[in-house]
Amino acid sequence: MNKARVETFSDGVFAIAITLLVLTIAQPTNYGDLSRQLWDRLPSLAAYVVSFLVIGIMWLNHHSIFGYFERIDRPLVYLNHLLLLTVVFVPYPTGVLGEALRRGEGTQTAAIFYSVTMAVNAYCWAALWLYASSGRRLLHAGFPEEQRRSATLAFNVGPVLYTVAIGVAFISAYAVLALHFVFAAYYAVDPISRRATRASTAE
Amino acid sequence: MNKARVETFSDGVFAIAITLLVLTIAQPTNYGDLSRQLWDRLPSLAAYVVSFLVIGIMWLNHHSIFGYFERIDRPLVYLNHLLLLTVVFVPYPTGVLGEALRRGEGTQTAAIFYSVTMAVNAYCWAALWLYASSGRRLLHAGFPEEQRRSATLAFNVGPVLYTVAIGVAFISAYAVLALHFVFAAYYAVDPISRRATRASTAE
Amino acid sequence: MNKARVETFSDGVFAIAITLLVLTIAQPTNYGDLSRQLWDRLPSLAAYVVSFLVIGIMWLNHHSIFGYFERIDRPLVYLNHLLLLTVVFVPYPTGVLGEALRRGEGTQTAAIFYSVTMAVNAYCWAALWLYASSGRRLLHAGFPEEQRRSATLAFNVGPVLYTVAIGVAFISAYAVLALHFVFAAYYAVDPISRRATRASTAE
Amino acid sequence: MNKARVETFSDGVFAIAITLLVLTIAQPTNYGDLSRQLWDRLPSLAAYVVSFLVIGIMWLNHHSIFGYFERIDRPLVYLNHLLLLTVVFVPYPTGVLGEALRRGEGTQTAAIFYSVTMAVNAYCWAALWLYASSGRRLLHAGFPEEQRRSATLAFNVGPVLYTVAIGVAFISAYAVLALHFVFAAYYAVDPISRRATRASTAE
Repeated sequence: MNKARVETFSDGVFAIAITLLVLTIAQPTNYGDLSRQLWDRLPSLAAYVVSFLVIGIMWLNHHSIFGYFERIDRPLVYLNHLLLLTVVFVPYPTGVLGEALRRGEGTQTAAIFYSVTMAVNAYCWAALWLYASSGRRLLHAGFPEEQRRSATLAFNVGPVLYTVAIGVAFISAYAVLALHFVFAAYYAVDPISRRATRASTAE
Repeated sequence: MNKARVETFSDGVFAIAITLLVLTIAQPTNYGDLSRQLWDRLPSLAAYVVSFLVIGIMWLNHHSIFGYFERIDRPLVYLNHLLLLTVVFVPYPTGVLGEALRRGEGTQTAAIFYSVTMAVNAYCWAALWLYASSGRRLLHAGFPEEQRRSATLAFNVGPVLYTVAIGVAFISAYAVLALHFVFAAYYAVDPISRRATRASTAE
Repeated sequence: MNKARVETFSDGVFAIAITLLVLTIAQPTNYGDLSRQLWDRLPSLAAYVVSFLVIGIMWLNHHSIFGYFERIDRPLVYLNHLLLLTVVFVPYPTGVLGEALRRGEGTQTAAIFYSVTMAVNAYCWAALWLYASSGRRLLHAGFPEEQRRSATLAFNVGPVLYTVAIGVAFISAYAVLALHFVFAAYYAVDPISRRATRASTAE
Repeated sequence: MNKARVETFSDGVFAIAITLLVLTIAQPTNYGDLSRQLWDRLPSLAAYVVSFLVIGIMWLNHHSIFGYFERIDRPLVYLNHLLLLTVVFVPYPTGVLGEALRRGEGTQTAAIFYSVTMAVNAYCWAALWLYASSGRRLLHAGFPEEQRRSATLAFNVGPVLYTVAIGVAFISAYAVLALHFVFAAYYAVDPISRRATRASTAE
């Protein structure tokens, strides 16, 4: 198993999934009233921005986490495939949520669908981490034990939070978008992941 | 012929083909009844998941096989192009099969179409391997002769199995999806390919 | 933070965004009158060409600018994500502008929309540069101070020019396309960026 | 100018353009009559296969030609952008040709359109080569002068052949597809390019 080639493949998949997001914004249909049609698509733009940041931050954290690994093995590659399967899927619920908000129909269903996708994604991240870190299976010898414990805690809390976030979809679809924006922002400044990045570049 | 650049190109094609799979799931048309529309698309999701795993495992095995090669030549690049041609095509029958299952119409034709695509793909894999390994043309000197024979056997059995699998399409389209899931799972744990991976990383 | 991996990810996103542009040209609908239908799509082709060159030159300048950096940090990665968010978005206003010109409807709105997208993109470039260069935060020690000042001037003038260019959209949509073509051509031969490229390759 | 990064960007663009070809095959519309609908799409499949091989061989020759270059400069990057602009465009005429053949309408126009695209592409290849090789501007010192002359001849003959091929479109659209298949096959076994590849890997 060549770690670099798995990272390159994953980078490619992240880059393509993030770029396909632009296809989720519905084309205008009536050019005689274009300004209103574009204005109506603001929710799709909002969904595009949130999903873009979510995938962008995920890419960054994928990068950090793989930096912890001394080596990789076949099961990790399969868990990584599962994770990518959920990342590649993100444009679909993003498009559905943006379109539901634009039409003002089916917003609750769309918001639940979006939240469930993100929750499944969080479970895949947790599975990836737990497999790689339990018994320090794939970790660098120099990776601090204390940091492993705090990361494991964070990766266990993540799925819980994302599962709870599904409930927010019953209140407001916009709240779901806002919440996932906040979650992405949190992971962007998260001290654990920042420390980890330092550790992985220090070698 | 630069082996690394052919591998990078192939990796890119695999990564894009696997990501385009998400476009095969039809957009909802009626947002007033969104939950039922999404539920109806479960077969498309199933086809997406199976094809994602199939391409993901193929990428992994491409990786393993190229690890056996000491060098590559022009004919191999053309055989690799043929193989990629069938990989890039996969999203099309995947979308057709998912949509046929959703509509409950044309499922048998769609399942045959999907199975034939996978069978053609299996023939391309066999051609690639037979060209590269016959007379040990492109193999590393250190690649064990006994392993070459067992791999050749496996690559000859593959097309037979995939051809037989076309027959399953006459029974049930879901059985076709299940079967290709099982085939992918088999290749994922296949002892030959696992041993090969070890061999290729050992150098 | 690994500079090379951020560059590779960005390269991937640029390459995909530039390739998705081809999807912005509407498919013919009436094949009985195909030559006229293709001829009518010339504005879409023009929009495709201009946006292709714009993204192509951006990719080149991204390359130049990252060559100035000694190292990168998390905030730079987020500013780079913001920049990529606007790059990935480009196919959408490109398609809208080409289609509006083809239909002869909504051209002014479409031209404003296109210009605003490009202006937001210019602000992101300025933010990226100002963050990285102020106090020489991330610059190579060998990067000449005088060149930093002239680049900063250029990156401050850019957003002003692109903002002014929005006004051109009120005159003519074709003038907007022509202007962005000229801007791209200017950045292509820009002495600052050329000098910079030399500096970055000299190390 | 970093040659490796331009090659990587070009590889990415080739890989994405070749993969987007699958989107040019129209989705079935009537699943009650799926086998006939798929059968009707055979011309689209033929156009897909020919364009796939054309882009695949182009990628290979891009690879060979860049292997001749000692270094690259800005004008070459712009000529390379122009070349990529025509490569990225290929899926559009491919889709139009396949669809025209399926409908049996507009086939002559579609075949001319396809041929013109390929001719423009041939002019871009010639421009790239003439710029890089005239006065041995960017060539390796070790690249044989005699080979430069024969390659220049070939790159001058190419555009002539592709221009003449436009005339074939007035006879038969299928002949156009067959001809571009033959051209691709010729470039695949072309002795000049093969010798060149050897030269470039020998360093």
